[in-house]
Amino acid sequence: MTLSLPVSGKTRLFPVVGHPVAQVRAPAVFNRLFARAGIDALAFGLDLPPDSVAATVRGLLASENVGGVLVTVPYKKVLAASADRLGLDASQVGALNALRRAADGAIEGDLFDGAGFLAGLLAAGHGVAGRRVLLLGAGGAGSAIAAKLGQAGAATVAVYDPQARSAQELAASLQPHFARTVFESQPSLKPHGFDVVINASPLGLKPGDPLPLDPDRLAAGTLVCDIIMEPATTRWLQAAAARGLPVHQGRHMLDHQLPAYLSFFGLPELAARLRITSDSITLEETA
Amino acid sequence: MTLSLPVSGKTRLFPVVGHPVAQVRAPAVFNRLFARAGIDALAFGLDLPPDSVAATVRGLLASENVGGVLVTVPYKKVLAASADRLGLDASQVGALNALRRAADGAIEGDLFDGAGFLAGLLAAGHGVAGRRVLLLGAGGAGSAIAAKLGQAGAATVAVYDPQARSAQELAASLQPHFARTVFESQPSLKPHGFDVVINASPLGLKPGDPLPLDPDRLAAGTLVCDIIMEPATTRWLQAAAARGLPVHQGRHMLDHQLPAYLSFFGLPELAARLRITSDSITLEETA
Repeated sequence: MTLSLPVSGKTRLFPVVGHPVAQVRAPAVFNRLFARAGIDALAFGLDLPPDSVAATVRGLLASENVGGVLVTVPYKKVLAASADRLGLDASQVGALNALRRAADGAIEGDLFDGAGFLAGLLAAGHGVAGRRVLLLGAGGAGSAIAAKLGQAGAATVAVYDPQARSAQELAASLQPHFARTVFESQPSLKPHGFDVVINASPLGLKPGDPLPLDPDRLAAGTLVCDIIMEPATTRWLQAAAARGLPVHQGRHMLDHQLPAYLSFFGLPELAARLRITSDSITLEETA
Repeated sequence: MTLSLPVSGKTRLFPVVGHPVAQVRAPAVFNRLFARAGIDALAFGLDLPPDSVAATVRGLLASENVGGVLVTVPYKKVLAASADRLGLDASQVGALNALRRAADGAIEGDLFDGAGFLAGLLAAGHGVAGRRVLLLGAGGAGSAIAAKLGQAGAATVAVYDPQARSAQELAASLQPHFARTVFESQPSLKPHGFDVVINASPLGLKPGDPLPLDPDRLAAGTLVCDIIMEPATTRWLQAAAARGLPVHQGRHMLDHQLPAYLSFFGLPELAARLRITSDSITLEETA
């Protein structure tokens, strides 16, 4: 995507830190927004290695012209552990996807994945209250989504992860917070009896990845959701759609967390002007 | 300046590190070039504080998608001291303006200020062989220019710096390398008897800065050169021009070091296509 951007020494920077980052959609989404709003700011992917990511991110946040850092796979948990302060979602889940430097110099983080995913689902007309949900992946995004499913009153949230212990720990850590929702973990994948299946694992990032779950094993009418954003329609969603199942793309999760990110990064006026629909993000003109 | 740039997670990054960075011209110059050449790369200013700049720059150079780091005031000497290996110019002067990660993981730096300044001066028709030069400022850029003036056979290079010891040390360190050129330092500013005067100090970066030297004190015909790039015509050059003296803008120094930077950053084909004139940089079409 080609954008008209003003880039000078004055430009405010928003690195998107991950490993790898070639797949990240955030730079395109944020830059389109900055360009439309006439804000001299720039988002870009920054691929940092695990051994130095925490120190480098702290160094970047000490910069006068870094407005904040977006965090993606595999650093959502690691950087939550190294932040000075966490917001409620980040603190409950132990993961984050945004960092900023507070006025007192402390590094603050918060988590918007779950809120964005749920808002996107609701905007597409899919409720989760009283529904049975199978969640694939107990990493940063999976944990955030699990917590929000509890807040939204899902009947069941079953968590599967190839690392069975991660799934167990996630279910056990969230259960005390929610009375209406049963959290459970699946030692092996049993995809029967669910209304909604969500891929919150990295499977689908790489072309050669296996499908997170064979769609043939899902009952008719099961809503199939992915959080992988690139490609917009993953092989998994393609296979599910071919089988006649309703699908929900990963892009909605990011689109619908944009207002929260912008407020966190000190741009609440811009956040308030966003109008997000299923296929576009527009900016309401200021009066 | 607004540019059409493709920015995604795949974009190769070239941070321009300094403190402050609002004045840097390098992002605009590099981005225009990348856009014209269709290269998915992006330069931007990054303002880092002194206490963590070395560690943060090393962290950035460990990134998969950082192509290299450009270094500006006040870090040209500090980052030369922390690099693993230096090129000849950087090693002779003890300063650098570019860093890259070598194949073996070592951080390598080199210095292109002096070469760019001299090439720009020659391209504008101003020779320095046999001329008497007054150099204001013994920092990173001043040191680089002084060394190149020696290489180009200037008769005299007199160095003035408010920190008299810096000027003394620079003259003393360079003298052994050059038989044709007399290096000397000025404890107080005596601007008489020079053919060329060069401002290589930071004076002119900030609107309230005093002039590096009152142009009324210069003899008719003295060539007045600045290395400050923003504004293109500094108050000092304005005052000199108003007095009828020939002037030489700071932008030429950067323009003419572009080929060296591009080669250093692994883009020699792009470097070879550059055609630099006094008022434009164009890209020769590939056959």
